[in-house]
Amino acid sequence: MTQTSTITAIATAPGGAIGIIRVSGPDAIGICDKIFHSVSEKKLTQAMGHTLHYGKIIAQKQDQREELIDEVLVSVFRAPRSYTGEDAVEISCHGSRYVMQRIVQALIDAGATQAAPGEFTQRAFVNGKMDLSQAEAVADLIAANSAATHQMAINQLRGGFSKELSTLRDNLLKLTTLLELELDFSEEDVEFANREELYTLAKTIESRISYLTDSFQTGNAIKNGVPVAIIGAPNVGKSTLLNALLHEEKAIVSDIQGTTRDVIEDIIQIQGITFRFADTAGIRKTKDTIEQMGIERSLKALDHANIVLLISETGIEFPNVRIPEDKHVIRVINKSDLTHPASSFVYNKVSNGGYIHISALTGAGIPLLEQELVKAAAIPEINDNDPIVTNLRHYEALKKAQDSIERVLQSLQDQISGDLIAQDLRLCLFHLAEITGGEITTDEVLGNIFKNFCIGK
Amino acid sequence: MTQTSTITAIATAPGGAIGIIRVSGPDAIGICDKIFHSVSEKKLTQAMGHTLHYGKIIAQKQDQREELIDEVLVSVFRAPRSYTGEDAVEISCHGSRYVMQRIVQALIDAGATQAAPGEFTQRAFVNGKMDLSQAEAVADLIAANSAATHQMAINQLRGGFSKELSTLRDNLLKLTTLLELELDFSEEDVEFANREELYTLAKTIESRISYLTDSFQTGNAIKNGVPVAIIGAPNVGKSTLLNALLHEEKAIVSDIQGTTRDVIEDIIQIQGITFRFADTAGIRKTKDTIEQMGIERSLKALDHANIVLLISETGIEFPNVRIPEDKHVIRVINKSDLTHPASSFVYNKVSNGGYIHISALTGAGIPLLEQELVKAAAIPEINDNDPIVTNLRHYEALKKAQDSIERVLQSLQDQISGDLIAQDLRLCLFHLAEITGGEITTDEVLGNIFKNFCIGK
Repeated sequence: MTQTSTITAIATAPGGAIGIIRVSGPDAIGICDKIFHSVSEKKLTQAMGHTLHYGKIIAQKQDQREELIDEVLVSVFRAPRSYTGEDAVEISCHGSRYVMQRIVQALIDAGATQAAPGEFTQRAFVNGKMDLSQAEAVADLIAANSAATHQMAINQLRGGFSKELSTLRDNLLKLTTLLELELDFSEEDVEFANREELYTLAKTIESRISYLTDSFQTGNAIKNGVPVAIIGAPNVGKSTLLNALLHEEKAIVSDIQGTTRDVIEDIIQIQGITFRFADTAGIRKTKDTIEQMGIERSLKALDHANIVLLISETGIEFPNVRIPEDKHVIRVINKSDLTHPASSFVYNKVSNGGYIHISALTGAGIPLLEQELVKAAAIPEINDNDPIVTNLRHYEALKKAQDSIERVLQSLQDQISGDLIAQDLRLCLFHLAEITGGEITTDEVLGNIFKNFCIGK
Repeated sequence: MTQTSTITAIATAPGGAIGIIRVSGPDAIGICDKIFHSVSEKKLTQAMGHTLHYGKIIAQKQDQREELIDEVLVSVFRAPRSYTGEDAVEISCHGSRYVMQRIVQALIDAGATQAAPGEFTQRAFVNGKMDLSQAEAVADLIAANSAATHQMAINQLRGGFSKELSTLRDNLLKLTTLLELELDFSEEDVEFANREELYTLAKTIESRISYLTDSFQTGNAIKNGVPVAIIGAPNVGKSTLLNALLHEEKAIVSDIQGTTRDVIEDIIQIQGITFRFADTAGIRKTKDTIEQMGIERSLKALDHANIVLLISETGIEFPNVRIPEDKHVIRVINKSDLTHPASSFVYNKVSNGGYIHISALTGAGIPLLEQELVKAAAIPEINDNDPIVTNLRHYEALKKAQDSIERVLQSLQDQISGDLIAQDLRLCLFHLAEITGGEITTDEVLGNIFKNFCIGK
């Protein structure tokens, strides 16, 4: 490896009580010493790893005068016992954006470089602290907002998926060895590997890879939420319904047509499932340019949705929108409070083509609607030990591996010669190895993975 | 002190790479041990203060199964060497809101209590780690968003203001002693304290207190920003101007009248001074209920402003709004790009009653406008060593102290007897002591101060 720089970045969001600035690299401790003044007057370079130190951060202003930036707590880590595997320091300061920026600036003035997004985790990968799928799980874990997404991410971080892939690779290598043995002795017309045995082994591998690729649909719905479009004529209470589902005020509600001009997307969990609701502009003919833009966005939201909530109110027809056939449609009649006295209100049973009476205003019927949404989402329960693919890059690599192993199966059936089969096996191995990384990972692949991380991770 | 609970709270904002959970109290280390499993298998209760430990947080799910929540880094602090002065632990986890909430939940299940806002800092005050004005500076430091607000907060945190108050109290005590000496021997008709000398001493104290109360106007403008109202007829480009000043898109801009329905307030720094711009709904007669509400809010924003940006466009008159006399008005003519070809565009000099030609769209004239805003804000430079009062509570206490010391001066001039003067001196001392706290601080006062802190500080 060439000479490594020392990087720094803010690792916490602004607005908290505490802020953390990370520093990692061969000169991390020396650079921090230049701006940190311990109350004990001890230098960080003399500190042991895994120790904490209290003191002041002092930097120079533009006019060369000294400026006290903050009183901080400094954590010292010695390589290889750190997140990155390098010498590292974490500075815990008051959570002011200004203070955090000034400290990073002072560290850069003292010789550090601003870290790129995900660069700390990239270094952890390069230094062998984790494989690529574990590094990706770090980003997923940070973004986790439900028990399900959290569980998928922590399983992957703990190496559950890596272990699964490792078993697959072992089986593939076994298959390859058996085939190559056959090739070496092919002149002698001895069939070492029983073709049926090979087929059974390949089939086991194929069905496990298929399971993983299939799991992506569930994984993606859990990770990114099930998209739901709320569609209806103006003024039927779509915003009010969204608010009722969110249990808080987010959208502007008024009794004037055309209030909702933007598509407001909000994430809400119902029975542990994440839904992404897009409230849309009322669909009607309008001369208002901004509202017209809103309606176009509504139609786009409809395209992206898995579930469509079609809203009307009693006595008024459902809007005449062409809904693609692959959408699960739930028909809702709102404002039941206006037409039914609350006491005699009866929920309709929802059957195919039926509809739900609700009052977004009073909340009547909302639990029934929530139940229908969960049914429509059709997300199976996750088993703790079964890995679920949540990452598009993994899915694509698995798809390619699946293609290769399917060709292997076909070739075995067609009695194709072993050297052609071995080529597909190596391809399958290659694509599985792409997921966890290793020697084969190019800088371009790494760049693509880590550019989507937040800075400071 | 009665038995103290062990408190916990999330101390970082969601959305960062790292999250911090704080725990403080007599059982902080024991409680953490229940959910933390060190890789070294060492218990935290055996750990020395100021050390770091890597391991897993494992909690029980509702169905009693164990759940791995995260891999974390734990900092151990031993009383009194911690922020609060108590035993304390900080858990550094992945910055997911879900993970942070689960860890806090697990700590509460293990015996901790959710901390109230500012409770960590309140404990630091109660345990003598800082005085009340320093505790308040912690909140100001976290909120600091400019060099000036940061400097004021860090000076106060470092005890600059406390020292100033301590000097004032020493002088007041000296004055009181001299007066009481006079009282003790009043029967003997010996005047120990020269009244002129007393007057000079009291005058010194009074002018220093006056300086501090006067500094509040500056301090408040620096801390909260100088309020500016942008006012003009509909469609003259107020939102575009705000965007030009902000150098980013925040307000919705369109060519349709009445787009801006809410008062959008945004904070922007120009030459180190913070301005709070309130973009307002165009003022015109309207039947649109929502827009009418917006116009009412505009008029309120006008009331609160120090500076009014009155916007028109070439050929159109300035809006006919009654602007209170104490406002500094800057008249701006927008859309100069439409009337002047860019190449021949000439900035007007601004004199009294003059106006600035700008193009919010192209940015022409914006630097001149920024310069005028800085002039209108009239904020003096801050001297490093002169404390500036930024806190309303301090200002109010100082005002009362000022009243008392002014009565002392009057009494000394009027040859009023010493015992009446001593009463006012004690009152002055009392009000100054309110600022830094101490024995005299009631729970109610503490409650009022710390309720405005963020949770986790």
